[in-house]
Amino acid sequence: MSEPVRAAVVGATGYAGYELARLLLRHPQVERPTFYLRGANANVRCLTELFPQLRGWGEAPCRPLSAACIADSGSQMVFLSIPHEVSIELVPELLDADPKLRIIDLSGAFRFRDPKQFSGWYKVKPADSTILAESTYGLPELYGDAIADSRIVANPGCYSTSVILGLRPLVDSGWIDTGRGVVCDCKSGASGAGKEPKRETQFVEINENFRAYGLFAHRHTPEVADHLGLAESDFVFSTHLLPIERGILSTLYVRLKEPRDTDQVAALYKGFYAGRPMVRVSPIGKIPELQDVTRTNFCDIGFAIDASGKRLIVVSCLDNLGKGAAGQAVQNMNLMNGYPEAAGLI
Amino acid sequence: MSEPVRAAVVGATGYAGYELARLLLRHPQVERPTFYLRGANANVRCLTELFPQLRGWGEAPCRPLSAACIADSGSQMVFLSIPHEVSIELVPELLDADPKLRIIDLSGAFRFRDPKQFSGWYKVKPADSTILAESTYGLPELYGDAIADSRIVANPGCYSTSVILGLRPLVDSGWIDTGRGVVCDCKSGASGAGKEPKRETQFVEINENFRAYGLFAHRHTPEVADHLGLAESDFVFSTHLLPIERGILSTLYVRLKEPRDTDQVAALYKGFYAGRPMVRVSPIGKIPELQDVTRTNFCDIGFAIDASGKRLIVVSCLDNLGKGAAGQAVQNMNLMNGYPEAAGLI
Amino acid sequence: MSEPVRAAVVGATGYAGYELARLLLRHPQVERPTFYLRGANANVRCLTELFPQLRGWGEAPCRPLSAACIADSGSQMVFLSIPHEVSIELVPELLDADPKLRIIDLSGAFRFRDPKQFSGWYKVKPADSTILAESTYGLPELYGDAIADSRIVANPGCYSTSVILGLRPLVDSGWIDTGRGVVCDCKSGASGAGKEPKRETQFVEINENFRAYGLFAHRHTPEVADHLGLAESDFVFSTHLLPIERGILSTLYVRLKEPRDTDQVAALYKGFYAGRPMVRVSPIGKIPELQDVTRTNFCDIGFAIDASGKRLIVVSCLDNLGKGAAGQAVQNMNLMNGYPEAAGLI
Amino acid sequence: MSEPVRAAVVGATGYAGYELARLLLRHPQVERPTFYLRGANANVRCLTELFPQLRGWGEAPCRPLSAACIADSGSQMVFLSIPHEVSIELVPELLDADPKLRIIDLSGAFRFRDPKQFSGWYKVKPADSTILAESTYGLPELYGDAIADSRIVANPGCYSTSVILGLRPLVDSGWIDTGRGVVCDCKSGASGAGKEPKRETQFVEINENFRAYGLFAHRHTPEVADHLGLAESDFVFSTHLLPIERGILSTLYVRLKEPRDTDQVAALYKGFYAGRPMVRVSPIGKIPELQDVTRTNFCDIGFAIDASGKRLIVVSCLDNLGKGAAGQAVQNMNLMNGYPEAAGLI
Repeated sequence: MSEPVRAAVVGATGYAGYELARLLLRHPQVERPTFYLRGANANVRCLTELFPQLRGWGEAPCRPLSAACIADSGSQMVFLSIPHEVSIELVPELLDADPKLRIIDLSGAFRFRDPKQFSGWYKVKPADSTILAESTYGLPELYGDAIADSRIVANPGCYSTSVILGLRPLVDSGWIDTGRGVVCDCKSGASGAGKEPKRETQFVEINENFRAYGLFAHRHTPEVADHLGLAESDFVFSTHLLPIERGILSTLYVRLKEPRDTDQVAALYKGFYAGRPMVRVSPIGKIPELQDVTRTNFCDIGFAIDASGKRLIVVSCLDNLGKGAAGQAVQNMNLMNGYPEAAGLI
Repeated sequence: MSEPVRAAVVGATGYAGYELARLLLRHPQVERPTFYLRGANANVRCLTELFPQLRGWGEAPCRPLSAACIADSGSQMVFLSIPHEVSIELVPELLDADPKLRIIDLSGAFRFRDPKQFSGWYKVKPADSTILAESTYGLPELYGDAIADSRIVANPGCYSTSVILGLRPLVDSGWIDTGRGVVCDCKSGASGAGKEPKRETQFVEINENFRAYGLFAHRHTPEVADHLGLAESDFVFSTHLLPIERGILSTLYVRLKEPRDTDQVAALYKGFYAGRPMVRVSPIGKIPELQDVTRTNFCDIGFAIDASGKRLIVVSCLDNLGKGAAGQAVQNMNLMNGYPEAAGLI
Repeated sequence: MSEPVRAAVVGATGYAGYELARLLLRHPQVERPTFYLRGANANVRCLTELFPQLRGWGEAPCRPLSAACIADSGSQMVFLSIPHEVSIELVPELLDADPKLRIIDLSGAFRFRDPKQFSGWYKVKPADSTILAESTYGLPELYGDAIADSRIVANPGCYSTSVILGLRPLVDSGWIDTGRGVVCDCKSGASGAGKEPKRETQFVEINENFRAYGLFAHRHTPEVADHLGLAESDFVFSTHLLPIERGILSTLYVRLKEPRDTDQVAALYKGFYAGRPMVRVSPIGKIPELQDVTRTNFCDIGFAIDASGKRLIVVSCLDNLGKGAAGQAVQNMNLMNGYPEAAGLI
Repeated sequence: MSEPVRAAVVGATGYAGYELARLLLRHPQVERPTFYLRGANANVRCLTELFPQLRGWGEAPCRPLSAACIADSGSQMVFLSIPHEVSIELVPELLDADPKLRIIDLSGAFRFRDPKQFSGWYKVKPADSTILAESTYGLPELYGDAIADSRIVANPGCYSTSVILGLRPLVDSGWIDTGRGVVCDCKSGASGAGKEPKRETQFVEINENFRAYGLFAHRHTPEVADHLGLAESDFVFSTHLLPIERGILSTLYVRLKEPRDTDQVAALYKGFYAGRPMVRVSPIGKIPELQDVTRTNFCDIGFAIDASGKRLIVVSCLDNLGKGAAGQAVQNMNLMNGYPEAAGLI
């Protein structure tokens, strides 16, 4: 097997960062990772100070964030689990300090090659365009080869991963009657809203509740458009908040140009994802549900088709902290280092 | 105010029946209702034997089910909260015993005038066609006058109520580009699945889970088609199970023929529901959420429209046991007896 | 029936205040209440601005908080649903402005006659001792007559209500072997932790979790000691956080001096609470559960006794926002105004 | 390291059996386990037929249950995750078929050496007394050496594990004033109630609810008494149902003969569990909570002591399907085969 890798993680205090810590601590090819923390946590010396529940699972050193220290530490891979505006500043510093560092950024900072597209949706100054030009959208099932060779990988959004994996086989097949519109109705658990205390994410506000949010304004919209090759006017993408901790389920509605039957659709998806260990096409007749994928790195995809063969509902689900964030980051690291794609993830 | 009414309730052991009991016990115009029970509960003598949690709220006599006894009891209104196949048998017996009885049936038995449509979806022998012909679909905001004069009212399905109220103003306006399809993505709490113990409704199976079910096969589909005037091929109606007790939220996607702005859409809905106390059109910019309507008889409707003015998302939510079942039955009773529409419901 | 009352409410933005608003809006004897708000909400003009979900339920004017305005408004009853330190300042201002005002305070500010006891537990300067001396502990089942005549009623703590009602009959009977210790293991839903956003009350931190907190340090401890007449060393009182919105269930463990049987214990409790509509002693063999009392003003009490007749477990449950806060405040108002004790509460 | 082991599992359709399957599929020393199923599942041929969510995790053959086949298969360890009455019949058949088989039974069938004690609590005919005499109570932290040499290990009850581990250091220290009583107030998630559909474990009955059950009648009571050396009259053990999937938290109340301080108590627990990887004594001041142990094999123990140093509250928590069932079974297997105690569990 390939050589082990030395990994640094910037940020571990959010839900995705904590998940990443757990995955890296158990990864067979990762040497004990070092965590670089900011602000109030800059003085933390080991991870169980922050997360006593990790006692017995493993331990990892923590250091104050410094691009120079990361470069000096001999780290080869750097994971960034920090706000996009921090990533935008930190990435050039890291590459200046050591151009051989390879970076996986979990924020939205490097998901668009077009700086204007980024700043239009994120309302902050984008990263330098040369850095953007070199970054790869880290969806392994679509861009595995490019990821393997990339120095900067932009880990996709959680919703985007779910929708793109759910629809890409159909888009590529040319079967969709795009003119009749595609509807992506997505539902996520509350960990997707982040760890900062907010009124709307208090227990009493989410428990026994369900609501739509961010209609026509969610930042994952352009990722979906870009990687499905759809005009924004051709699809609707909506997001809802489920009263659960983890998981995204997307219900995807398309009209087909020609009638198709169950076997044809199943064959299309199975063919498309053949050899990809982290996407599981459901057996015919089984619609995947969140519990099937919670705390895994799988994306499960199933579907139902109406009697006419022209109205198709695809259901795509994954764990927003797994395949939607930290797990996918590890999957990308595996590809970048020649490890088996599912190493440390099953 | 109008005269009080004597009410009989057949069935009180399901979730909707219990909700109905609570509403009727507190309704200012209803004389102490009598409950008629079947099977293992036929020997129950008073409601708190079945529901000790009602002690202090009120008390009501229980009797073994008998059409003759109901007729003899002086009851004027009869609520049926029983399986549709039982309703199909019981209604003619009740009307034979006393043709002046007025009936509100909460099952699907009388929701279709066409017996073939019923038996196609429900797979049992339909009610007699003369009885079907005289029944009224009990959606007060659309058919209030007919309900007021009707002897048999078929209380609508919970999902159907949510979808029909959410889309009917748009359908009537002629604004929808029907050819581009309408998508109705609906999510319901677990009480909608009924009270009979089943593996798939055990706590562990629903908690921290979310799933679609009944795709292209849900019995509420034809109600939606009938009362929106849509061909089944023109819309998709899907249902999902939320890990909460009560509530339905429907996210409804339409394309408009011509661009409309927020004020136009708001004016359309406010005009349509003017004077209807149980539908609340949300203030512009507010998308209704389940907690707003849980344990009420309100249906809240809000919307978002994209920058082009042509893609519209309507969100409609209600309590599946309230406006979706027992509350709506009481609202129908109010109309049938000349009481204020919201009596006992606010 | 007695005259209607004009009520003012100071504070409506917490969970208890909102519950109080709902109860007062529907109370048959309360003239439309006026709400007095502070800080960022001082400019709110009507309650549905703050709580759009109240549209259709009722409407109430809001005013900036001012003792003088409350006195001038003709209000007779003032409810305070504000932090204890604000109550301590406001009550003397209100009584200066109009000595005939009658006040029900939901905070801990007036629950102790001894100022030192208060400041020891609450770590702030106590209210003036003459005001404390005139306040009544507002537990209607114990102090109904004093409440009826009181000008200042201190609404009890939610946990305290549950524990005191659960044990007081046994204490008064003299049956308890106090020397062997009393254990009060209490569990509460998350609304008891208040509405201010905090890390530890975020959805993800409470959901699928359960924890003890405040061991040997909870402020409700001295209320329990005072009103059960127990030394603090004679009992243990612990509190836990349940992953639900509302409700407190207290499991209370005592040893009896002499063996008692089920009938004797049941007779003791039924006798003690005879004529008290808001306490329901469970039928023998039925242990009350939270769902029985959620969204009600009932306190349900049941028990189990071991074969020896000497180890007794009492289970007491209530809704922390109902009988544990807003409902109890309304019950106190009823007693203070000669209304039926359960008016507006059933 | 020691030799790998061939394992057979009887029963995998309950929650504990499924958890066991997941653990064994990933255990580094276990050769692909074979599952033996009964009744309706006897024809299942591979585990993903039953649990499609295991696709990608691993696969395992399934066979119809037969003691002879198990013996012939070359299995060395047999796990029984079946009802106690089935275990009572199956164990002698297995040992007849191959006396070298070593058995870990997850039911209550072999937890008592005294057949009368068993039949008094379980109301069925006990196992043969010679078999009972040879069985070991499988609590590794107390009986590790005996387990290592045992042919039949009775995996403890989930509640019992939590209570015994929480109190045993104190019992052994002689610090407890037993005459003043010990109270064990235990709360469990719903998976502990098993997978069979029942009214009381339906989602709607557990969600937003909390209740005590089995007071003075829970079958785990005698395990607690036996392994703490307490007379049943000296302690009270109560059980409650939490609206969560997994986890047990026990709040344990004792009075001490002499005052102790925090450091003394911490030293006692740390000393007792030194070298035991699956019990984590919490840092002073930290009370463990369920999320810390969910989906792990850890038992976390923390405590609070009052100012007098004589009233002590110990909080013990674990995952009822992990350390309370399947995880503990694997831990026992590790000891029986000379593997590291935590192998496959961290």
